[in-house]
Amino acid sequence: MHIALDGMGGDYAPQETVKGAIETLKELEDIQIIITGDKSLIQKELLKYPSKLKDRVSIYPTTQIVTMHDHPKDALLTKKDSSLYKAIELVKNKEAVGIVSAGNTGAQMAISLFVLGRITGIIRPAIAVPMPFPHSMGLLIDAGANTDCNTKQLVQFALMGKIYLENMLKRKVTIGLLNIGTEEEKGSKLTQEAYQSLKNMFEEFKGHIEGDKILTGEVDVIVTDGFTGNIALKTIEGTAERIVSTLKAEIKKSNLAAVGALLMKNAMKNLFKQLDYETFGGSPLLGTNGISIIAHGRSSHVAIKNAIKMCYKMEKEKIIEKTIQQLNHGNFA
Amino acid sequence: MHIALDGMGGDYAPQETVKGAIETLKELEDIQIIITGDKSLIQKELLKYPSKLKDRVSIYPTTQIVTMHDHPKDALLTKKDSSLYKAIELVKNKEAVGIVSAGNTGAQMAISLFVLGRITGIIRPAIAVPMPFPHSMGLLIDAGANTDCNTKQLVQFALMGKIYLENMLKRKVTIGLLNIGTEEEKGSKLTQEAYQSLKNMFEEFKGHIEGDKILTGEVDVIVTDGFTGNIALKTIEGTAERIVSTLKAEIKKSNLAAVGALLMKNAMKNLFKQLDYETFGGSPLLGTNGISIIAHGRSSHVAIKNAIKMCYKMEKEKIIEKTIQQLNHGNFA
Repeated sequence: MHIALDGMGGDYAPQETVKGAIETLKELEDIQIIITGDKSLIQKELLKYPSKLKDRVSIYPTTQIVTMHDHPKDALLTKKDSSLYKAIELVKNKEAVGIVSAGNTGAQMAISLFVLGRITGIIRPAIAVPMPFPHSMGLLIDAGANTDCNTKQLVQFALMGKIYLENMLKRKVTIGLLNIGTEEEKGSKLTQEAYQSLKNMFEEFKGHIEGDKILTGEVDVIVTDGFTGNIALKTIEGTAERIVSTLKAEIKKSNLAAVGALLMKNAMKNLFKQLDYETFGGSPLLGTNGISIIAHGRSSHVAIKNAIKMCYKMEKEKIIEKTIQQLNHGNFA
Repeated sequence: MHIALDGMGGDYAPQETVKGAIETLKELEDIQIIITGDKSLIQKELLKYPSKLKDRVSIYPTTQIVTMHDHPKDALLTKKDSSLYKAIELVKNKEAVGIVSAGNTGAQMAISLFVLGRITGIIRPAIAVPMPFPHSMGLLIDAGANTDCNTKQLVQFALMGKIYLENMLKRKVTIGLLNIGTEEEKGSKLTQEAYQSLKNMFEEFKGHIEGDKILTGEVDVIVTDGFTGNIALKTIEGTAERIVSTLKAEIKKSNLAAVGALLMKNAMKNLFKQLDYETFGGSPLLGTNGISIIAHGRSSHVAIKNAIKMCYKMEKEKIIEKTIQQLNHGNFA
């Protein structure tokens, strides 16, 4: 199995991307990784590692880089020899089963959509973000790919999210609709309508869930439009950051608290590890004809490794094939 | 100045509501409080306090109670002799300048809207929730009163929020629009359109802000539709709860961490105090012809006191009169 890795995408590329690739090769023996990007830079990084690992890495040299500031459309139209574009093209040409990038998310979505195309019947792909539940992994879909959605799209998000998660977790999963209020008739016009469709189409559907239940694991797959999903996701991020910064400021004020913080170091570390995106590595874009994993811009090699492993598992579990199958069986397309 | 207090609203009524009233009277010498509700229950609570304070309390006896499970419409139509309804009626009849309740929020909104009416020109009232910024107080508006909004409503939320906050803080405030992405062209159809109107109508407008900036104080007034606002608010709540519960579980695992937690007790307390709704007491419903303060269902006497003080300050600052004035001056109605 070949997996394409955008060698230049991310704040710590190519050092951390190359390191992440090498670390993955240690764990997965049946894959090879194609790293796209600046040949000499990537070669220089590879020098650090033993040849039995780097022999399973090939470099696909490219001349352009999509930056975080590039507009998705510009990246799509003017950066066809970028590490991102070429990595996605490798998937299109069946030279790789999927692509991982920690680069410009908007550009990755746009190029994935354009180059790989949609699964027939899927209106628009969606970003499925793994959620750190206390005792499991959940999924928030869509986390920002589609700002204005209709009911049919939400139903498709539910289907794609369900197939993805039940195959990743190897168990049945439940579905909830993110809403204000939990009663059937509560919410916006969209959620009221979507509630009825989801209820009719999924036995896994457990009804509305509110914002304060996103992280509890009350339901496994949390369905929402990309506008709301992105606000929720960033609000989680902002709240955690605020709590940490306020606590740090309070600790600075008192020696006693500083000693306390020292003693709590491990507990804190475990807390952050639970909430850390690195644990999951990335978020799959679901609905494209080919696997495309969006890793965090600040990805370390650990995040890159876990994103590549996510891609590997999606391919092993035949997520795309299963989605096509179930789309054609139900009234989803 | 008379302020009406729903004596039976809230999880800890009437004990905490009555205590909150008494505590407020200690701090504000120029007000009287009318408590609505079960006469004998309230009288029993009042017995605990010295007469020089309770002399400034009068009881308005009512026979019904709006419960948390009552549908707003049912409460409006069938509970006209409830402590909530009568308290709002006192404002309508000018016997009180405003009403505070920790009861059923939906019912309070519905009855406030029906009994007090809207400020002429305001499409729909909105809930303005105080936000605990690191060094100041901000405002999120609308936090759940209006699920499907148009641009004109968002502009009115901005106006009402701005007038409220600049008078409460006694300084100029800035306005931001909650969105996904910060660039002008980013977001949903609604936020893209609203961006242009807000830019044209408010010199205070600073553009879009994302979910991770809600708690930072980057802008003072955060404008959003009630669906998104409610999701964001509950997500903050859920994230904080999750962090606390995970940390507690980690502390339980280690004696060292437990000692650390003990030493950090004060720092933690200060953290929670900063993030606690009790500090603000309540959220005003803005846009009604009369002050209506929505307090948290779990309000203690501290929250009740701060909610009454919020009502007092809104009256002192003539928030409603100023809103009417500025509505007629600009192109807002």
